[in-house]
Amino acid sequence: MNLAFKHTSSVRVRYGETDQMGYCYYGNYAQFFEIGRVEALRSIGMSYKEMEASGIMLPVGEFSVKYLKPALYDDLLTIVTTIVELRGAVLCFDYELYNENKDLVATAKTTLIFVDKNSMKPRKAPDQFMNLIQAYIV
Amino acid sequence: MNLAFKHTSSVRVRYGETDQMGYCYYGNYAQFFEIGRVEALRSIGMSYKEMEASGIMLPVGEFSVKYLKPALYDDLLTIVTTIVELRGAVLCFDYELYNENKDLVATAKTTLIFVDKNSMKPRKAPDQFMNLIQAYIV
Amino acid sequence: MNLAFKHTSSVRVRYGETDQMGYCYYGNYAQFFEIGRVEALRSIGMSYKEMEASGIMLPVGEFSVKYLKPALYDDLLTIVTTIVELRGAVLCFDYELYNENKDLVATAKTTLIFVDKNSMKPRKAPDQFMNLIQAYIV
Amino acid sequence: MNLAFKHTSSVRVRYGETDQMGYCYYGNYAQFFEIGRVEALRSIGMSYKEMEASGIMLPVGEFSVKYLKPALYDDLLTIVTTIVELRGAVLCFDYELYNENKDLVATAKTTLIFVDKNSMKPRKAPDQFMNLIQAYIV
Repeated sequence: MNLAFKHTSSVRVRYGETDQMGYCYYGNYAQFFEIGRVEALRSIGMSYKEMEASGIMLPVGEFSVKYLKPALYDDLLTIVTTIVELRGAVLCFDYELYNENKDLVATAKTTLIFVDKNSMKPRKAPDQFMNLIQAYIV
Repeated sequence: MNLAFKHTSSVRVRYGETDQMGYCYYGNYAQFFEIGRVEALRSIGMSYKEMEASGIMLPVGEFSVKYLKPALYDDLLTIVTTIVELRGAVLCFDYELYNENKDLVATAKTTLIFVDKNSMKPRKAPDQFMNLIQAYIV
Repeated sequence: MNLAFKHTSSVRVRYGETDQMGYCYYGNYAQFFEIGRVEALRSIGMSYKEMEASGIMLPVGEFSVKYLKPALYDDLLTIVTTIVELRGAVLCFDYELYNENKDLVATAKTTLIFVDKNSMKPRKAPDQFMNLIQAYIV
Repeated sequence: MNLAFKHTSSVRVRYGETDQMGYCYYGNYAQFFEIGRVEALRSIGMSYKEMEASGIMLPVGEFSVKYLKPALYDDLLTIVTTIVELRGAVLCFDYELYNENKDLVATAKTTLIFVDKNSMKPRKAPDQFMNLIQAYIV
């Protein structure tokens, strides 16, 4: 099912996230996209923390990112997160990352899988999520 | 130009790299692949550190990864790195990550760009690299 | 010279900052205290980024931390940062970290050293800092 | 009880562990000391992973570090770890970190607490540890 929920959050690049090139290290963007999707879910009324406490995890299955411009120390980045698709147990997010000059710094995609914490098997999306996302089916 | 240089290195998952799911956090694999390519270059006689000191950087342009099985705390992972292609300024690496049971934990691809540190523009691969990689053109 | 400038900032514990114990990993607090001091400096009108661009760095010389209660995933932590002393080139900060229940999660101290980027030698605090901190000498 | 078990391990500074100062970021040393103590325990026949699986955790209570010289990208650091004291539930480690020129880069201390995973209360050191450490009581 195609979805179209878009949410905007922000994150400031920490000193410890830069590398000696003077760029934000390429491996640290994964945390920014995690912030993007967790805050997107929170904004529709869903706490990832509570979902996990209820026995459903959402690990990442695939992750791809294009680095278009360096993100720099102290940059206040804008993360635009779109929930784009639910395909059985698989939930897909797209991300755009902008700096304060509105330059597109990076784009990314992740697929995550709803997993039952006990059986460790994929499972359908929880009812709470289905109810909350209903309005954004396209 | 297609290349076929394969190199094997290893890395042990640190406690600080796990998350509360009990898995190695998805964002930490980027460091493992960095180890893979730096050690692959070192094995053909090329120090990334010295190349950077000489004024040539190699930032990541694209990165994609598939997480097939969780990597766990204290797992001694094997990183199989292949240098697969040089396309102008762009150098492509593939990676396979295995655990101690020989399970394929993740596969990944990165493209990196040779960049002149002063002009910050892409540039051709340094002569040293061209000489060292010569034997692996396919 | 004794100082008494206190500033409050906040940080949310990221998933990637937890470990398999379900706690925020002990090594990740250093980044929280960095946020605390950078935001404390920003609040008096001083940008750490600009200071570094002007040729003065402020590396950490000593760091100590007591972990009193675990910080957990998604906790919105309050960082209370106090600039406590300037001793030649050495600037001392104290930190208290609280969770949303107002529990004291950790206390910490850092000493940082003003260093000239060219000579790599300690140097006195920049005039801008001296002017801005003037009001907080006790 | 005073202990005197010393163990040497090594770690190479990763690119992602540097910061734009060109130093290894101060927060990343905590992972190096973790490697030091986990490898020290492994060397006497004790797997931290297995201890945790058996229901005993060893979180850090206090951590202090002095940064004497910068650790740099690609430095192969030597970690000298000493188990110095067991005081009820509290186990104390000292660390020295050296670079390839045998310069002392940092010294550190941690206190860790044996904690029962179910009750989340401090508990005495496990018998296995007591047996293995016996030979190093001073």
